[in-house]
Amino acid sequence: MNLNIRNFISSSDDFRSELDALLAWDSVSDATVQKSVADIVEQVRLSGDSAVVEFTNRFDRRQVVSSSELEISREELALAKDRVSPELILSLEAAAKRVYDYHERQKQPSWSYQEENGTLLGQKVTPLDRVGVYVPGGKAAYPSSVLMNVMPAKVAGVGDIIMVVPTPDGFVNDIVLAAAYIAGVDRVFTIGGAQAVAALAFGTETIPKVDKIVGPGNIYVATAKKMVFGVVGIDMIAGPSEILVVCDGKTDPDWIAMDLFSQAEHDEDAQSILISPDLDFIKAVKLSMERLIETQTRKDIIKVSLENRGAFIHVKDMDEAMDIANIVAAEHLELSIEDPEKWAEKIRHAGAIFMGRHTPEALGDYCAGPNHVLPTSGTARFSSPLGVYDFQKRSSLIYCSPEGASELAKIASPLARGESLEAHAMSAEYRILKDD
Amino acid sequence: MNLNIRNFISSSDDFRSELDALLAWDSVSDATVQKSVADIVEQVRLSGDSAVVEFTNRFDRRQVVSSSELEISREELALAKDRVSPELILSLEAAAKRVYDYHERQKQPSWSYQEENGTLLGQKVTPLDRVGVYVPGGKAAYPSSVLMNVMPAKVAGVGDIIMVVPTPDGFVNDIVLAAAYIAGVDRVFTIGGAQAVAALAFGTETIPKVDKIVGPGNIYVATAKKMVFGVVGIDMIAGPSEILVVCDGKTDPDWIAMDLFSQAEHDEDAQSILISPDLDFIKAVKLSMERLIETQTRKDIIKVSLENRGAFIHVKDMDEAMDIANIVAAEHLELSIEDPEKWAEKIRHAGAIFMGRHTPEALGDYCAGPNHVLPTSGTARFSSPLGVYDFQKRSSLIYCSPEGASELAKIASPLARGESLEAHAMSAEYRILKDD
Repeated sequence: MNLNIRNFISSSDDFRSELDALLAWDSVSDATVQKSVADIVEQVRLSGDSAVVEFTNRFDRRQVVSSSELEISREELALAKDRVSPELILSLEAAAKRVYDYHERQKQPSWSYQEENGTLLGQKVTPLDRVGVYVPGGKAAYPSSVLMNVMPAKVAGVGDIIMVVPTPDGFVNDIVLAAAYIAGVDRVFTIGGAQAVAALAFGTETIPKVDKIVGPGNIYVATAKKMVFGVVGIDMIAGPSEILVVCDGKTDPDWIAMDLFSQAEHDEDAQSILISPDLDFIKAVKLSMERLIETQTRKDIIKVSLENRGAFIHVKDMDEAMDIANIVAAEHLELSIEDPEKWAEKIRHAGAIFMGRHTPEALGDYCAGPNHVLPTSGTARFSSPLGVYDFQKRSSLIYCSPEGASELAKIASPLARGESLEAHAMSAEYRILKDD
Repeated sequence: MNLNIRNFISSSDDFRSELDALLAWDSVSDATVQKSVADIVEQVRLSGDSAVVEFTNRFDRRQVVSSSELEISREELALAKDRVSPELILSLEAAAKRVYDYHERQKQPSWSYQEENGTLLGQKVTPLDRVGVYVPGGKAAYPSSVLMNVMPAKVAGVGDIIMVVPTPDGFVNDIVLAAAYIAGVDRVFTIGGAQAVAALAFGTETIPKVDKIVGPGNIYVATAKKMVFGVVGIDMIAGPSEILVVCDGKTDPDWIAMDLFSQAEHDEDAQSILISPDLDFIKAVKLSMERLIETQTRKDIIKVSLENRGAFIHVKDMDEAMDIANIVAAEHLELSIEDPEKWAEKIRHAGAIFMGRHTPEALGDYCAGPNHVLPTSGTARFSSPLGVYDFQKRSSLIYCSPEGASELAKIASPLARGESLEAHAMSAEYRILKDD
């Protein structure tokens, strides 16, 4: 199949503006979506269960009568697990264990130290009490996302993990429920869309109010999450998935072709970019792609995303490749090159760095250990993979000795008066020791 | 002066609903503000400097002709510092040092580990490239906020720190500029409002585009920050400041009165609450307040905030006080009690915990070391004080050995096929070693 993929040359005058145009992604939801989501959120906030049931019946074409029908018990999760093939269950369990083990290294302890005069300073680190995990239903139902969103919360010690997953037309995905069972989700409700986000944010008679909502969703879910941000915490709003493969031309072109496909097959907006200093290699990868795409069940999606948003970038050398990678700040950066650790030192911005010829993104998506929830659309410039730190929070600790307080008060008092905050000054001055 | 402050008794039937009503705070900006901010943000995005100059002249009543007039050079910051009293400069320098030292303990290193088969996993931790710090101008100009927002970024190793501060009618606050000089801000621009947030988020010919915007501001600033969230990172949107003082009745009532004032004097929406099991002590604090308020230059603000949003809560015992503190999840929690460390163990949610009778909030506001940018309005349930971690981000590291990749591919393949992602499966399967 002929593939019409953009070719860029880094030495071209227009390269930077072409690159910016390639990377541009506008995730803003339009006014209609905004209005519709605002209405749903407000009705769920005011009417609770009755609104949730009404929206669920309307949008998911269900016939729920009582809100109690919305919950899936742990026994039902176990039954769903029994319906999944043993091979798949073993893989889920192995993946869950690896993800758990990796994330245990992220858990942060409380800390404190004492100054000479006895004053204690530090931070107390505690898990969130209760978290909501949104899991999309229907065709894009990913059991791996259940593991990736739930395991860091488990490691953090979150008390209560509430999962919501829509079941349009009553369709239930057994693998997703099996993953919820294996991950140790506390309660599961079959709701989705903006109504599920609102129910988790404000709580209803049936759905417990949570402290933070994580997990991917469509534009309605994303808009609702942004709307309730502040009432609860949220994770990043994800854009389409992207991969940037840097190859020195010495990896099997078929491997690189398939690595690019594995991103492109997600959806029509996904982005796959290959950078190489070897023009013949780029051509070889293109030929591999044109041959291999015929074998792909999702070839229509792959073709659209490659032709709309994919690109080959021919660069001068590896240093320039790293500069471009830092501009792109890709969600997934694959360094399919010799001595990848050395080159990774030059990378400042990336969600995840896959090093070497034997580390395709797909391994990280499922079971290597690191999280597959990663910052997209260049947001790796300022944000991080989902992690245990997203499910822990901190309280500053200050315990002044009388001597310490007296010294600090003498610093604080002029500063407070400089800000015309007299009560602050006096509150500090009361703690100055008489004989000081 | 007579003070009409609410009295609650925890044993009352209505207590929980009364408490919820007391704590309720609606920070939603109205449609007019939304529309106005959206217009400003869009115009700055499209027209850059010319829009920034136009809005600055309009809203801050200035006569800027060229955008170059918007920058304050480091030499001018040094001159401003020379105009501030030496005592205040010494306090600023002492505070900056203490804040820096405390935050150094928050800096997180990269980490990695190797599995038996040679596969390497970890996280690379890097500072943000460039950060914008918003500093309010006019009457609520707080040099301490400059230190608290800038020092953690310095500790993180942020390359470029850009400060914006509006100068309405051309009024420049020398102490704020001195704090910027001492903190080591890289560039300062005299712009504010939504136009400053938009300029930092999108960049203009003069104002550099940043990766994250932090710092407090009015409703226009907060709305603009929420609007550009995703294009850049932002810190939490702060609500009004609050303090919850728990006292066993054995601290000088004047001290507690002044600690409550120090919060109430911020603005009319600030919240000061005292919890005690000792009713006579509550009465004594009230008498202290009625006497001491006469001495306060900001007594009108203090009176309004205490009467609108303040409260005394009489509880059964200290255990119940801790339960209520966890419900409130206060920005500032003062445990003015015997054995405060023991009781602090029961606290799950608070921005900062001030322990003992000699640790008033005012010391933490200025110079104890911990950050004074703290989660408000109960958001301590899911968020943390501003810290070095807000200026660092993480990239996952995965480097599979051929043997490790081969093992992982056998786990990933069935999972990918279970999600109907065939290219993921094939990309993984290519890495299964032939003799495995």
